[in-house]
Amino acid sequence: MADRTLLPDETTTRRLLDVQTSLLAANEDCAAKNRARFQQHGLTVFNLVSSPGAGKTALLVATLERLAGRLHAGVIVGDLATENDAARLRTTGAPVVQITTGTLCHLDAQMIDRAADMLDLAALDLLFIENVGNLVCPAEFDLGETRRVVLLSTTEGEDKPLKYPPIFRFADAVVISKMDLAHAVEFDLASARTNIRRVNPQATLFELSARTGEGMEEWGRWVAGDR
Amino acid sequence: MADRTLLPDETTTRRLLDVQTSLLAANEDCAAKNRARFQQHGLTVFNLVSSPGAGKTALLVATLERLAGRLHAGVIVGDLATENDAARLRTTGAPVVQITTGTLCHLDAQMIDRAADMLDLAALDLLFIENVGNLVCPAEFDLGETRRVVLLSTTEGEDKPLKYPPIFRFADAVVISKMDLAHAVEFDLASARTNIRRVNPQATLFELSARTGEGMEEWGRWVAGDR
Repeated sequence: MADRTLLPDETTTRRLLDVQTSLLAANEDCAAKNRARFQQHGLTVFNLVSSPGAGKTALLVATLERLAGRLHAGVIVGDLATENDAARLRTTGAPVVQITTGTLCHLDAQMIDRAADMLDLAALDLLFIENVGNLVCPAEFDLGETRRVVLLSTTEGEDKPLKYPPIFRFADAVVISKMDLAHAVEFDLASARTNIRRVNPQATLFELSARTGEGMEEWGRWVAGDR
Repeated sequence: MADRTLLPDETTTRRLLDVQTSLLAANEDCAAKNRARFQQHGLTVFNLVSSPGAGKTALLVATLERLAGRLHAGVIVGDLATENDAARLRTTGAPVVQITTGTLCHLDAQMIDRAADMLDLAALDLLFIENVGNLVCPAEFDLGETRRVVLLSTTEGEDKPLKYPPIFRFADAVVISKMDLAHAVEFDLASARTNIRRVNPQATLFELSARTGEGMEEWGRWVAGDR
């Protein structure tokens, strides 16, 4: 009697899908406009997604410090509340726009459009978007980015790509973060690699620690592209 | 020009709120029915929420092992995909119903209603609901639970309660998990406590490690209540 698998109620799912379809269509239009605008400025835009605490801000701070003096980078950072992340990022000297979403669980293209108005895009080479910490909802919202990057921290466990496939499936790169903690948390790197590959065979894979600098060289090269 | 704070576009927010209001109203009705049904069976129901990888399944496995032979507990576990968590939980001998949500980022009361049909509620003392790993969306969906429990792992950082206030605000208990890793990740326990208290002064606070057993005695007593 127990031990059964259940799918969500079809009526509920249908209502949600109808609503989502129209919201997503509006988002897609705006994302296309963002993409054209970014291309016009020769800007490479990264959309960083992960669960809360996977280390997006730490990675960005380390990346901005590494790029300083060589490339001009800006940041748009989304959070439900607080400006803690923005404050940390501003210590690098990069221009930072904070989006406070209230209860919305992801950034959308319209928010990025308006945040981009507050940056001098012509002066930038790279733009990093730090999405709201959430491994589910940002998957469906194209922001007009050039590359989508998913972070998976060693402290979250190796099975996350199988449990949250949508967000991993559409990633251009997967970053395994907090490699310095891999041993302490008994992280199984081989199993994590296999699980990522099962969901997304094409993604570029990075294994790094923003704290120790391990893997940051390779990541920095990928971010800078052929500039 | 940069360094500005932005709020979401009002039109977008309004449309989302209209949709959410009707969905939430239906959810509230169903949650009230679930609650009455659970009370009728003298069942205490826990809704466990956290970001992915905070250790909900590990805590539940350790809790079920601790209660075995004394209290009868069942589990409803939600995931986007895979039955990995259900398989781990079934090793304890407890009846487990898996809900696979597809792309939905939270459980709702209707899913719990149907999952509960698959359990022999009269035979149970406790029911644990392991929500989809997400620190944002489950906040607004009452499932009819007796107690809502939010897990915050030491590896996520101390500022999460301030960054994700809705989910912490409505918690009956906050569990700081993975205390065995606190030192390795330089977790600031005093700061975490302060941040939790700022958002939710009433919540019962637990600091534990399912791996070492630290703090599990106190947690087990709270879960068992006066049974």
